Amino acid sequence: MKALVYHGPGRIAWEDRPMPVLREPTDVLVKISKTTLCGTDLAILKGGIRTVQPGRIIGHEATARIVEVGSGVTDFRVGDHVIVPCTTSCGRCPACRKGLFSSCDRGGWLIGNTIDGVQAEFACIPCADTSLHRIPAGMDEEAALMLADIIPTGLEVGVQKAEVSLGDTVAVLGAGPVGLATIIAAQFYGPSEIIAIDLDANRLEAAKRLGATTVIDNSDGGALAKVMAMTGGRGVDVVIEVVGSPATFDLAQRIIGAGGRMANIGIFSKSVEMHNDILWLRNITLRMGVVNANTVPVLLKMIQAGKLDPRGLISHRFPLGEIEHAYELFKNAAREQAMKIVLSADDSAPPTEAIDEQVVQYVVGRIMSVLREG
Amino acid sequence: MKALVYHGPGRIAWEDRPMPVLREPTDVLVKISKTTLCGTDLAILKGGIRTVQPGRIIGHEATARIVEVGSGVTDFRVGDHVIVPCTTSCGRCPACRKGLFSSCDRGGWLIGNTIDGVQAEFACIPCADTSLHRIPAGMDEEAALMLADIIPTGLEVGVQKAEVSLGDTVAVLGAGPVGLATIIAAQFYGPSEIIAIDLDANRLEAAKRLGATTVIDNSDGGALAKVMAMTGGRGVDVVIEVVGSPATFDLAQRIIGAGGRMANIGIFSKSVEMHNDILWLRNITLRMGVVNANTVPVLLKMIQAGKLDPRGLISHRFPLGEIEHAYELFKNAAREQAMKIVLSADDSAPPTEAIDEQVVQYVVGRIMSVLREG
Amino acid sequence: MKALVYHGPGRIAWEDRPMPVLREPTDVLVKISKTTLCGTDLAILKGGIRTVQPGRIIGHEATARIVEVGSGVTDFRVGDHVIVPCTTSCGRCPACRKGLFSSCDRGGWLIGNTIDGVQAEFACIPCADTSLHRIPAGMDEEAALMLADIIPTGLEVGVQKAEVSLGDTVAVLGAGPVGLATIIAAQFYGPSEIIAIDLDANRLEAAKRLGATTVIDNSDGGALAKVMAMTGGRGVDVVIEVVGSPATFDLAQRIIGAGGRMANIGIFSKSVEMHNDILWLRNITLRMGVVNANTVPVLLKMIQAGKLDPRGLISHRFPLGEIEHAYELFKNAAREQAMKIVLSADDSAPPTEAIDEQVVQYVVGRIMSVLREG
Amino acid sequence: MKALVYHGPGRIAWEDRPMPVLREPTDVLVKISKTTLCGTDLAILKGGIRTVQPGRIIGHEATARIVEVGSGVTDFRVGDHVIVPCTTSCGRCPACRKGLFSSCDRGGWLIGNTIDGVQAEFACIPCADTSLHRIPAGMDEEAALMLADIIPTGLEVGVQKAEVSLGDTVAVLGAGPVGLATIIAAQFYGPSEIIAIDLDANRLEAAKRLGATTVIDNSDGGALAKVMAMTGGRGVDVVIEVVGSPATFDLAQRIIGAGGRMANIGIFSKSVEMHNDILWLRNITLRMGVVNANTVPVLLKMIQAGKLDPRGLISHRFPLGEIEHAYELFKNAAREQAMKIVLSADDSAPPTEAIDEQVVQYVVGRIMSVLREG
Repeated sequence: MKALVYHGPGRIAWEDRPMPVLREPTDVLVKISKTTLCGTDLAILKGGIRTVQPGRIIGHEATARIVEVGSGVTDFRVGDHVIVPCTTSCGRCPACRKGLFSSCDRGGWLIGNTIDGVQAEFACIPCADTSLHRIPAGMDEEAALMLADIIPTGLEVGVQKAEVSLGDTVAVLGAGPVGLATIIAAQFYGPSEIIAIDLDANRLEAAKRLGATTVIDNSDGGALAKVMAMTGGRGVDVVIEVVGSPATFDLAQRIIGAGGRMANIGIFSKSVEMHNDILWLRNITLRMGVVNANTVPVLLKMIQAGKLDPRGLISHRFPLGEIEHAYELFKNAAREQAMKIVLSADDSAPPTEAIDEQVVQYVVGRIMSVLREG
Repeated sequence: MKALVYHGPGRIAWEDRPMPVLREPTDVLVKISKTTLCGTDLAILKGGIRTVQPGRIIGHEATARIVEVGSGVTDFRVGDHVIVPCTTSCGRCPACRKGLFSSCDRGGWLIGNTIDGVQAEFACIPCADTSLHRIPAGMDEEAALMLADIIPTGLEVGVQKAEVSLGDTVAVLGAGPVGLATIIAAQFYGPSEIIAIDLDANRLEAAKRLGATTVIDNSDGGALAKVMAMTGGRGVDVVIEVVGSPATFDLAQRIIGAGGRMANIGIFSKSVEMHNDILWLRNITLRMGVVNANTVPVLLKMIQAGKLDPRGLISHRFPLGEIEHAYELFKNAAREQAMKIVLSADDSAPPTEAIDEQVVQYVVGRIMSVLREG
Repeated sequence: MKALVYHGPGRIAWEDRPMPVLREPTDVLVKISKTTLCGTDLAILKGGIRTVQPGRIIGHEATARIVEVGSGVTDFRVGDHVIVPCTTSCGRCPACRKGLFSSCDRGGWLIGNTIDGVQAEFACIPCADTSLHRIPAGMDEEAALMLADIIPTGLEVGVQKAEVSLGDTVAVLGAGPVGLATIIAAQFYGPSEIIAIDLDANRLEAAKRLGATTVIDNSDGGALAKVMAMTGGRGVDVVIEVVGSPATFDLAQRIIGAGGRMANIGIFSKSVEMHNDILWLRNITLRMGVVNANTVPVLLKMIQAGKLDPRGLISHRFPLGEIEHAYELFKNAAREQAMKIVLSADDSAPPTEAIDEQVVQYVVGRIMSVLREG
Repeated sequence: MKALVYHGPGRIAWEDRPMPVLREPTDVLVKISKTTLCGTDLAILKGGIRTVQPGRIIGHEATARIVEVGSGVTDFRVGDHVIVPCTTSCGRCPACRKGLFSSCDRGGWLIGNTIDGVQAEFACIPCADTSLHRIPAGMDEEAALMLADIIPTGLEVGVQKAEVSLGDTVAVLGAGPVGLATIIAAQFYGPSEIIAIDLDANRLEAAKRLGATTVIDNSDGGALAKVMAMTGGRGVDVVIEVVGSPATFDLAQRIIGAGGRMANIGIFSKSVEMHNDILWLRNITLRMGVVNANTVPVLLKMIQAGKLDPRGLISHRFPLGEIEHAYELFKNAAREQAMKIVLSADDSAPPTEAIDEQVVQYVVGRIMSVLREG
């Protein structure tokens, strides 16, 4: 099969790799239907994620068809159409029993990190029963793909960890794809204001379209003064940092108000300066973490109810075989006005109804008997 | 009257000052009965708290008798025996209505900071109705004094902000008076282990006496390895940092486990290094703040019910006039085995029953009539 | 002045009453600008609220101008344009310090209940500093009036007590004015489905217009079967009961699903049957209470941000002097398609800017001097 | 094997039954080591639990040794010494993913209810990986047995659902075994007062010994007046009802104070009267449910840390074969001063160290080779 392999900083290739095989009874083998690129993939490409070794197939967001199930899998069957989320979890370790699935003893973020990922034609997925989510019949597959990582990340790591609450003034630092997903998710919690801050006018335009009530282009470094003016000097209730740079983390600390809550979604490559000497007087909370992906079921309900349409995050679409080109484009995302880029396998068009496994088996049986009888 | 005045870094004096007067209708004037020294007072003495100007009477923990009430005070009367907590609050501003009393628009930590404090014979206290707490008849006054700051601080800023929960393993970094108060308060929330870490054997001895289940002398820098060994490499559920140094904040970040909660009580004089690059994988929460003192009523109930006896924190007792000597001793607290030092006015012995104001007025009236009638 | 007086079951009259006077230093006297009728007023009229004695001026929702302030009032001035909420609170008693303002020792629901109310030309309002809310300049006064009771009640007693959460399926039993307010408020918390159940087609039409995703006319008693069919037999996540009848409380218990949360807004005239024998297997929570009105500030922010427009609840408008006619209409609310009926004093048109008190005093001074000088 | 079989109201027998066999790959077969009687077993015996059919082996609390594991079980091995909790759960259904394990699609309370139970020599236990808990080496087995139901029930259904909080006054209605377990568990959450109410002096004596601060014998019906006197007429913060009778549920509603929380542990045989007409003014919360048993790991930590010793609940010990006698005694529990009655299999003495599976396999191999070689 073909797969996108990381060969060390700056080097990736779409190349032949052996077909993956099941490792554990709880694994399934899937044929990738659609996948997409994540900012974290760019961080890997820069050599910034130490756990990813050369030779690794990367990618951690996909929709797929199950083609083989391990002997211990009870809830999924061959033919099931599923979301493969970035985080897998066993459901039985102490962390899982407490709902902290991303710290699972046997899971967490493995796919495209410490095991081979889903920017490939096929992939082996662990802990299937407790990690995969069936795509409801009739749901748009691109919408479902946005639940593999980006919307749950904006929701869980950003909005929920920052406890966005009714009437809050929320600042989102960074309006790239994850920042935009955060802006979408924040609106489920009734904030009065969502202020998007970025350096790129196009992204701020997208932020406005997706629900930001105010956008600030910080190219001139004026965001601090503007936010303080908007809030009567009190600062904001919530800051969600989505960049992972010392400068935005510093800005976050300067605009947070009394009783405020800060969440880091941005991934930092090294330690940063924290103003404990000032922030203690403001009674603040700071949280950071990895997506648990446990909100996927509820987000599927929201799509079905017509309350969420995450397709507004998608800017480009290519065949899976053109993934190297997609990376070139994504590396210059701001300039290329790229948000989420969807890569589709040739035959990935979603059937409008779930496949009837009995029908499949009947058809397969007929074909086999014809072949055998010659 | 006499008062302890801060005259710039390193300089304090017990000297004559004019009698304080009411400034607002909601103020009361109190005669200090007992006061005590806080680690924050030492930080002031070093010039480390920028808001404290030379000429300021310091001190923010006291028990007292009310000697005059403003025209807008409705819930307290002359003669009432009260706790004066370090934080005052108006009860009506947006912060107060949300329960964030230490960020009160008209209050917060003012006493002994931006207004004159209670290491004095008399003091004017703002927002009396919404800040003072009547000492129940018969309660030991030294126990009540411990509710002016130290026990609420350990409880609210440490234990509650760190969400100490049933079965948690809790590390308390620093076993000075506030660390010990934190250890006392943590036991209200059912942790399985409380690990006290300090550099001083006497303080660790006190920690053990007051409820720590394990004590670690980190003079050899071995605390990190010991904590990780104790927790099977998982780290602790809760870290409460009570020192305010870069080294302890760093240790806190190294021993915190997945899903862990960190609270800073220690006051930092400058910014510190925060390992966002590592901690995001552990799903952590960090909180810091100022005591709201809104737990004083519940702590009074706990003392009355025999469930809390904070007098174990008291190491020394002096007359109020010897406060300069007390500071000398407190500056070398570890060497002197000093924890809380109580300063008492000459006539501060608590009456065992509340004074009946009607009786007082009757007696005063009789005396006056006798005087008048000659 | 004129006021609406309750004279025992079935009897009210718009009649002359003495001008109210300040009772406590913390009171203010207001001139009513707009008021409205509440379902609770009908319950009073039926004699169903035991605390309301004949001779009482009723009404507990108003916007008003302050015409006199008590000596202890510090945050409001004559001329201020305010919301008078149904619940007043002192901000200093134990209940208030815990945020349970409706159980305030000196407050709670007093106005139009145990003290004279606001369906009158003037009223005396207690605990002004901690109860009133200034109407922001330029805000529509009818929108503000909806924050005096109905929107906070739907939000606090319904939506917040039932913990409406992301993706929830919510059933609202009763689509009268308060049910509709509940439907509006529920949308701040990201439910996937809001099912409105009522017996009246017009009210269900309004429910749909205001945000219900499904409406069920239960005239045929089919709601139970329909809800169970919609939820695959699992029942709903949240039920908010807004009628106060045994039948709807019973339905609530039948449709609530595992882990479900029920809130009662409806006021019951007697005890009801509770199916503890069945509900324990479903792990349910039931809450009931009185509005704290502490969400008014946040709701004002939501109106200002354009995220809330509660005027859709208003069906009729009359001059204040026609209040008896308004009651006749409200008694047959379903038939008359009445929701909120707004009564306005003659001169109640809201100024678009806050009145400058200095200007007022200058003008008054000029007039007085002219009069005096003759 | 021998097992205790329910044969319809009033009839049980210790009789021969076929050896249980594995039904699902996720099942294990266990040899019961210790079991105990629950109040729910008496309710079954009276015919009061409709889901329990004649012919059912009852009992839902045990410690045991695993003697066979299904092919899908990965975390347990033959020889493991485990707690079998009353509730089993799959860890992957929507309820489990939300932490609501007792509403598991494939689990909940099945054992000794809808499938055969553990008052037997052997039993088949479903969902082993996500339900069983290994007993730590060296732990007293009787202490571990108390975690199969009674302590988690008091903790989860009583104390946690009622949100017992620092300084609360807590009333526990019923001081039988579960009431006593509730009193033990409540102390993890820092209440100031625990008031135990019962009709039996011996039980109240036990309540006092286990941590109640006040005990009230309600034989004279005076509990209501006494509680209101103790609380200055305010009522209590928390009521935990452990009897399941209309009278105690009524008392619960009369003594609950403003903002109070009520939890039902008692199992009711029919619906009861709920005073919605009164309680809405008090802002109350009522919860009821089935134990999730997800606190077992944390309770094991508490036992290991020496913070919990539940053996004080045990009043009698018998060999497993004398279980019918134990039932006779338990039916008159108050008169017999019976609390928890422990039934032990002959060879149930816990080894002080976990069995080394490698040793076992070596020994088995040696025996087999000897047999083969003759």
